Order: sequence, then structure tokens, then C-alpha cells
Amino acid sequence: MTYALKTYMKDKVELINSQLEQFIYAMQIPERLQASMLYSVRAGGKRIRPILMLAASEAYGEQDNRAMSVACAIEMIHTYSLIHDDLPSMDDDDIRRGQPTNHKQFDEATAILAGDGLLTTAFYTISNNDSLSDNEKAYLVKELAKASGPEGMVAGQMLDMEGENRTLTLEELESIHRRKTGELLRFSAVAGAFIGGANAQQLEEIETYAKYLGLLFQIQDDILDVIGDEHHIGKPVGSDQTNHKSTYPQLLGLDGAIEQKEHYALKAKQALEKAGVDSSYLEDIIDYISNRNK
Amino acid sequence: MTYALKTYMKDKVELINSQLEQFIYAMQIPERLQASMLYSVRAGGKRIRPILMLAASEAYGEQDNRAMSVACAIEMIHTYSLIHDDLPSMDDDDIRRGQPTNHKQFDEATAILAGDGLLTTAFYTISNNDSLSDNEKAYLVKELAKASGPEGMVAGQMLDMEGENRTLTLEELESIHRRKTGELLRFSAVAGAFIGGANAQQLEEIETYAKYLGLLFQIQDDILDVIGDEHHIGKPVGSDQTNHKSTYPQLLGLDGAIEQKEHYALKAKQALEKAGVDSSYLEDIIDYISNRNK
Repeated sequence: MTYALKTYMKDKVELINSQLEQFIYAMQIPERLQASMLYSVRAGGKRIRPILMLAASEAYGEQDNRAMSVACAIEMIHTYSLIHDDLPSMDDDDIRRGQPTNHKQFDEATAILAGDGLLTTAFYTISNNDSLSDNEKAYLVKELAKASGPEGMVAGQMLDMEGENRTLTLEELESIHRRKTGELLRFSAVAGAFIGGANAQQLEEIETYAKYLGLLFQIQDDILDVIGDEHHIGKPVGSDQTNHKSTYPQLLGLDGAIEQKEHYALKAKQALEKAGVDSSYLEDIIDYISNRNK
Repeated sequence: MTYALKTYMKDKVELINSQLEQFIYAMQIPERLQASMLYSVRAGGKRIRPILMLAASEAYGEQDNRAMSVACAIEMIHTYSLIHDDLPSMDDDDIRRGQPTNHKQFDEATAILAGDGLLTTAFYTISNNDSLSDNEKAYLVKELAKASGPEGMVAGQMLDMEGENRTLTLEELESIHRRKTGELLRFSAVAGAFIGGANAQQLEEIETYAKYLGLLFQIQDDILDVIGDEHHIGKPVGSDQTNHKSTYPQLLGLDGAIEQKEHYALKAKQALEKAGVDSSYLEDIIDYISNRNK
């Protein structure tokens, strides 16, 4: 990761974390429910989606803090999806980022409700931000609902579970990943560019850029599962194979997967050039996602 | 129930049911997820919330079909909350309206995702309706997110579970019901009046009207659990007592509960008079909710 991106991310992560907590503290939420929502929000993570969103908005000249509430809403949606995906009836994960998952720390009912609470709060946070125009609110709510809904992330989790224990084609695999992780990354970049004032053609290029980011994200995830350092990635290496998940290395071989990754990184860079922005951060994010070790 | 309200409800229920299905069919949703969403949406129910919403919008002169998408969004939120509340880790109900609950008919993971899918689709349905202005969309999304979120319905379910197996005060009981059922009834009436063009003072009176409707709704639920006909109400009579739930009859005695109900019905009628509408339907709904036998 470039030093510039590292510094940028560090600054933004602090702002995002503090804002996220403030949004949740500002509401009158029953104690245990609030604690459960805060627990997962605080569990950290790279905050790559809100950072992507902020970088995209700034790339088009957004100067003030209007984008921050949307960035936080995105992270709330991401966090809700992790809580629900970890549930015993779903992926049944006990550990996430080295800590007990929400339902392990609290209980299943509380975890489901914390997820529901974060999902609804995301829409509240956008529609309650008076520095956004009504037109911006309506656009952002619609696109976020689409990205996170039963055509997007909810579909992705459903298809992911249905696809376990059988070998998927590369097309099926990418279709699942597009919905499960790609849609929210796409929304993040597009929402940022939209708030920054990008025009329709630029939004389209940013969308293409984000589409390849999503594919890069997943392919690197799969590669790390084969060659990663267990301590870094926070889950057992080889767990995809144990869980009979279809992966890029399995379908293309490790070398093929790495080659595919480089192809996608190039595509992302080309889209970014066409998007008419001079943002080293957006370009650095491509390399960061391609080469991260966790 | 008056004949006029009966006819009105019958007409509206048909429209609502057909529109609800159309919204879900119009989306590209994985087959099993879509089936699960449709299953619960089709499981019927009285559709009292969307009907209240439509009656309120028409009371203020709304003529066209702009309110229908909001009415459907409300029913999606209601349906999602039933699916999640029925889950084994929550209220653990196997039967709802005489049919297997969603997780019994499908499975737990699918039920959780169907709920998530309906919740997000509600926000999509409002923000995707081009006959609403951006100002209306922003207002409706914000108010719906607040009513359904961790200060509203999600809080209500959390507090309801925490309150089991101990005796609540009347104040605690009403605070839980206000969030669990009252908030969405409130939103339904207020959203309808808002779309119909009510002014700020009228909105406030409609809100008061709806607040008492919510209390009436719950008090009659509790009374039916004591004196109702099992066949009509679709769950075993006396199940609140078996489940150690605090109820109005338990706290006030049966006669006291009936007296309280009449007091609330009067309050609702007074608010309606002040709201400056001449809607026999909104008035009939008070009596309907107070005296329903299921």
C-alpha cells in the first residue's frame, strides 16, 4: 500500500469510527440492543467501503462533510450483513476478526435484531441528513436498497448457501460474488461520485471501476485462503476447501487466478482513466485490494 | 364492522394483495428467496396498516394511486417483522394464521433472508415510485426507518423478549406495545395524511388518533387471548398466560381492560374530530379495531 493511501485510510477510519458510534449513540435504543449494535460496529475491519465512498466523492471535488453519513450508512449495511451471515443457520461462524461473532457474544435473537437495527438505521441516517438534498436522499436510498436487497446482497447470501457442496462454474461464482460483495462496493463508489457531482457518463465509468474492484476483492480473498497467513487473515487457511466452497484457484488454478486478478486490475485502471478524475487514492485502492495480505 | 368499511376493506385488500405480489415479481430474486418472500406476503392477515394508510390519504383528498406503493411498503415491513419474530431464537412460533411459519415452511436461513429482503424492498418500493416527489420520498423513508428501526419496532421486539417471565408495570407494557405495534400504525396513518396533503396541525392530530389505535389494537389482542374463540384468533386461547406475558387483563382485570379500551376509543375519536377530516372509514376503523373478534 502506498504511504499516501495508508495515511488517508488511517485518517478516514478514525472519522468513520467516531461518526458511526455517534449515529448509534444519538438514538434512544434499548441498552442490550444498542450494545450489540455497537459491538459489531466496533469490531473494526478495514472500512474499505466507506473509504472508497469518501475517496470517490472527493475525487469529484466534494469538499464538505456531506458524504460522511452515507459512508457510515454503507458500513452499517456491511456490518448488518456480517452479523446475519455469521448466524448458526447461515454460515455458523463463531469468530470474526479474532473476536466472538455477535450471536456468540450476545445471543441469536439479539444478533438478528442488531442486524435489523443496523439495516434500518442505514436508511434513517441517509434520509435524516439535512445537508443532502431531497433528490440526493431519494437517489441514494433507492440505490442502496437495490444493492443491499433481494436482487443484491440478500440474493448473494442465498445463492452462496445454495452453491455450497457443489462445483460452480466461473460464471455462477462471479454472479454470486457480484451480488454478495460487488453490489455494495459498486454503490459505495457510485454514491461517492454522485455526491461529488459526477455526470452520467462518469458515473458509468466509476461503476465499471467498482465492478472490477469487487471481482478483485473476491479473487484475492480466494487466493489468500490458499496462500495466506492464518494470523493475518483471521480465519483458518484452507477453510474454503474444508467448507467445499467454489473458488477462483480451484476453478482456474492458482496461477490462473493470479493472472485473472491482474486482468481485472488493468480493467479497473482503464475505467478510472475514462472516468475523468485525477485521484491517486482511487487508483491506489485497486492495488491495495489486489495485493492485501488479509 | 359497518357494511361500508367491510366493502372498503374488501376492495382495498384485493388491490393491496395484487400490488404486493407485483412488486416482488418485478424484481430479479433467486427462486427460493422469492418463494419465501411471497409465501409470507400471501399468508394474508387483515392488511389493517395499509388500509389505514389508504383511508387516511383519501380522507385528505388523495385521488390517484400514489399512496399504494407506500401502503405495500408498510405491509412488507409488517410481514418482515412477523417472519423474524416467529424465528426459533425469538418467539419460536410454528404456526401463524393457521399455516406453518416461514422458517417451518422453508428453513431458518431462508426465513431470515426473506425478512431482510422484505425490509429492504420496502425502502426500495417507496424510493422507486416516480409519482412521489423527492420531498415525499425523503420524508416517508425517514419516518418509516424511524418507526421500524431500533427506536421503534426492533426495540419493541427486544423489550418484549426481555419482559417475558416478569410482571411489567402498565407503563412498561404500553412502552413496549407502542414500539412493537404502535409505531407502524402511527406511520401508516401519518404517511397517508401526509400524502393526502394534511397540514402540520392535522398531521399531529392524526398521529394522536393513530397512537390510540395502537393501544386499542393491543388491548383487544390481550382481551381476545382471555375470552376469544381459538378458531377465530388462530392461536390457542390463554397462550399469553402460558407464555408468562404481561397483559392488560392481568394488570387491570378483564373489566378494567374493557373500560380502558373504551377510554382509548373515545380519545381516538376526539383526535379524529380535531384532525378536520370527514372520514367515516377512519372512524369505523376505531370501532373495528376495538371490537374485532380475531
